[in-house]
Amino acid sequence: MVKKLSEIAEFLGGEVEGDGSIPIEGLADIEQAQKGQLAFVSNQSYTKLMKTTQASALVVFKEAPSCDKPVIRVDKPNLAFLKAAQLFSPESLHSPPGIHETAVIGRDVDLGQGVSIQAYAVIGDRVKIDSGAIIYPGVVIGNDCDIGSHSILYANVTVREKTTIGKNVIVHSGTVIGSDGFGYIQDGAAHLKIPQIGRVVIEDDVEIGANVAIDRATLGETRIKRGTKLDNLIHVGHNVTIGQHVVMAGQVGISGSTEIGDGVMVGGQVGFVDHIKVGSHTMIGAQSGVSKSLPADSVYLGSPARPIGEEKRILASHSKLPELLKLVREQQKRIEDLEKKLALQATTRVSPDNKETERTHDTS
Amino acid sequence: MVKKLSEIAEFLGGEVEGDGSIPIEGLADIEQAQKGQLAFVSNQSYTKLMKTTQASALVVFKEAPSCDKPVIRVDKPNLAFLKAAQLFSPESLHSPPGIHETAVIGRDVDLGQGVSIQAYAVIGDRVKIDSGAIIYPGVVIGNDCDIGSHSILYANVTVREKTTIGKNVIVHSGTVIGSDGFGYIQDGAAHLKIPQIGRVVIEDDVEIGANVAIDRATLGETRIKRGTKLDNLIHVGHNVTIGQHVVMAGQVGISGSTEIGDGVMVGGQVGFVDHIKVGSHTMIGAQSGVSKSLPADSVYLGSPARPIGEEKRILASHSKLPELLKLVREQQKRIEDLEKKLALQATTRVSPDNKETERTHDTS
Amino acid sequence: MVKKLSEIAEFLGGEVEGDGSIPIEGLADIEQAQKGQLAFVSNQSYTKLMKTTQASALVVFKEAPSCDKPVIRVDKPNLAFLKAAQLFSPESLHSPPGIHETAVIGRDVDLGQGVSIQAYAVIGDRVKIDSGAIIYPGVVIGNDCDIGSHSILYANVTVREKTTIGKNVIVHSGTVIGSDGFGYIQDGAAHLKIPQIGRVVIEDDVEIGANVAIDRATLGETRIKRGTKLDNLIHVGHNVTIGQHVVMAGQVGISGSTEIGDGVMVGGQVGFVDHIKVGSHTMIGAQSGVSKSLPADSVYLGSPARPIGEEKRILASHSKLPELLKLVREQQKRIEDLEKKLALQATTRVSPDNKETERTHDTS
Repeated sequence: MVKKLSEIAEFLGGEVEGDGSIPIEGLADIEQAQKGQLAFVSNQSYTKLMKTTQASALVVFKEAPSCDKPVIRVDKPNLAFLKAAQLFSPESLHSPPGIHETAVIGRDVDLGQGVSIQAYAVIGDRVKIDSGAIIYPGVVIGNDCDIGSHSILYANVTVREKTTIGKNVIVHSGTVIGSDGFGYIQDGAAHLKIPQIGRVVIEDDVEIGANVAIDRATLGETRIKRGTKLDNLIHVGHNVTIGQHVVMAGQVGISGSTEIGDGVMVGGQVGFVDHIKVGSHTMIGAQSGVSKSLPADSVYLGSPARPIGEEKRILASHSKLPELLKLVREQQKRIEDLEKKLALQATTRVSPDNKETERTHDTS
Repeated sequence: MVKKLSEIAEFLGGEVEGDGSIPIEGLADIEQAQKGQLAFVSNQSYTKLMKTTQASALVVFKEAPSCDKPVIRVDKPNLAFLKAAQLFSPESLHSPPGIHETAVIGRDVDLGQGVSIQAYAVIGDRVKIDSGAIIYPGVVIGNDCDIGSHSILYANVTVREKTTIGKNVIVHSGTVIGSDGFGYIQDGAAHLKIPQIGRVVIEDDVEIGANVAIDRATLGETRIKRGTKLDNLIHVGHNVTIGQHVVMAGQVGISGSTEIGDGVMVGGQVGFVDHIKVGSHTMIGAQSGVSKSLPADSVYLGSPARPIGEEKRILASHSKLPELLKLVREQQKRIEDLEKKLALQATTRVSPDNKETERTHDTS
Repeated sequence: MVKKLSEIAEFLGGEVEGDGSIPIEGLADIEQAQKGQLAFVSNQSYTKLMKTTQASALVVFKEAPSCDKPVIRVDKPNLAFLKAAQLFSPESLHSPPGIHETAVIGRDVDLGQGVSIQAYAVIGDRVKIDSGAIIYPGVVIGNDCDIGSHSILYANVTVREKTTIGKNVIVHSGTVIGSDGFGYIQDGAAHLKIPQIGRVVIEDDVEIGANVAIDRATLGETRIKRGTKLDNLIHVGHNVTIGQHVVMAGQVGISGSTEIGDGVMVGGQVGFVDHIKVGSHTMIGAQSGVSKSLPADSVYLGSPARPIGEEKRILASHSKLPELLKLVREQQKRIEDLEKKLALQATTRVSPDNKETERTHDTS
């Protein structure tokens, strides 16, 4: 696919400075771009690369310096990239609609228009898949599931029975939705399994990374609300609720029944204990351990997680600890020394001609 | 399925207070229960919900207050829930026994009575699957494996060659058992792969979560003993032994050749270094890093893991660190000040009429 | 397979001390070895087992003590084990070459000599698979991928479109290569997905553990260079570069665009923030959190990661913290006490016959 730079500018709602007739074959990172490609300069820190890049043209932010290459000036280069990528995106990625002859489809399955079900997918009984949804090879969907329109389940995803997935949801490969929650009752040495008869609900516009595990509820629901984005290898325990528009980085773990508020942002490898609530729009730094409920609109860091200012002061003091320890030991000696001297002074002054001092000393 | 409350009470070994004739259609969480459902009140902290719940009836602990709804009073509401859930559990979840026409079965495979092998499962040569075991779609079992009776392998599980799985074992989707251990010999810059020719043994009554990875032994066995329960996304290295009735929360990682004793309980995201032993019935708090062997019957926390009392004292002192640092710096000034003053006193007292004091000072 | 001990010695380039005619059926760990097996003693710490082992013969290091069993003395017992394991390795593990009748092969696929594609594997369009590569059951390979010669993709691996995998690469089960990177632009409350149109390149001789997730680049490449070894459950973000001969233990997480230098060694559960560089041959201890770029040839530990000496001093001081806190509080009292006493002395000495002292005091 080749487009003239001026066509791209028009599509992005910007104007070309320079030769708008040059052909563009694709998009590229400014450092790796080749001739024929369009690169993006989203802020000041990339302007130094404008001279050295091999890109044929650049999309730049409004205040970017001028340049010997043709540029398209826009308000938000990131958004422009998003639009441009859709322009160049290879639609052929996704197989054409239709049910592959090897797909196994259960009884009473309801398939919407233009649904794509690919090789060796296995669809259980009474499953409903809405229009435009794409089910990649090797996906297994249990009985009584609902998959919303235009959702994509990539290869080798497993969705267990009774799961509901909304519209425009993307689930990456290897992810498991609806596995049993981790619940036992101790009976002597043994652990009796508590049946996990609840389900999982994934609302619209959610994206879930690769090799994530989301457990079904013991009773009721594990729910991930609208617009939330989960990275790879995240563990979501039974009966967890994750609010709307939450962003969670890789390898986060959430224990059972914990509630994450709307708009919360969570760094990588964070862990949450069970049965706590995190207020909306709170941010939690990477590798934190959240051991109690957190208020809304706050920033936490550390294990156990503390308000970030407090944690940063503690971390700063850590590097001074060995020195502090040494200092306090020296002080100990100096105090002992002072005490000895003062005691000696007191003694030496206990003389017939200085009774007053001695008396004063006694009362202190 | 609908049952009369009195029938459920009889099944649970309790008695109905109130109208035993009401119909119950299923179980529910007390907060989410609807008309027709039975909810559970296991302890004092849920009694306030007894008035507001929409449930038609309640199973409550012996000392629970009375209520305007029919109740079944029992000793252990959790155990009662476990039994009741079996009563209402949809057996249809599991496909009927039989070998799906698309399953690929190797040579010399030995299948017990009532085994279910579902669509697109692939069973290697010389595999033995005992009576009542259920192999879900997309499961791949390598050559020379044994799967015990009534074990369940959920969709897209991979079991590599020579693995032994006991009776009543549950393996959740996406889990890999028997992948090569992580062993290399450094040869200049390169790392030569040490062949991993051992195997994995999973004993009876073990449950393994979703997307877990359990490596085969280099030589000998990686073994998970009877009754142990592993949550999701756990990493078990080569030649690890996990004892009986261990409970391990999500995202724990165990390095090669480490031995975890019977009845150990491990919080989420804990890491264990290689070649250590953890004594039986020890408990390890979430996110701990276990860097050396731990004794039995103890409680550890932190990275590096310390006895919990010690770690908690350290964590408590952390929040006082910035203040401590400030205090010690102030003390430093006060000590210097004291020293100056004392020195001056000594100086001023060094006068012909007070030689004794001076001499004393000199010897200190 | 049975071999005479003398044959094995010849293959390993060593000589038998004792009876070289005894038959050896396989290799075993020295602690678990049975009659008929050969065990290995790689260093002094295992020599005490030489008397008690049931092994029929031993491969030992040059300086090992003599023994009542036949031994083969070699320079490097680990390397000897590696060679011997190849001798006994069951080649039958890997299915014979050929395309299983159930494999789904796309259009314009180019298959080299002796390629094995097993049951229910799905190969996209325009894929090239070089000679001797083995594709296990349930593997899904997207369009436009390249798989190098003699590479092995174990069961249920997913490789997304446009991925390049080199020669002699091993990818363990459940691993996902080429899932979308985690990139969004915030637009009010919602997060707009940034299209991920780059790709993943895995160079020759790389080994990747089970249930790993490696994201494709936003633009350009995510690249894992020659000879690198990744353990299980690792998360590699978009646009990450991992150098040559890197060794990374389980559950490590690497955020977007971070560069790991050649020969770096990373302990388990380490996390790296985005857009940093780790210099070559640096070592990073388990559970560290790397929050900024690190120099080459250094050793780091902790969260945040610090030079190991510094971190160890801090960790050592932690265990003294509660005691330190107590000490400083005592010192506070002693200093106050000293100050009081000194103040009193000063007061008592302010007398008509000692003006000098008083004046001195005032100026301090």
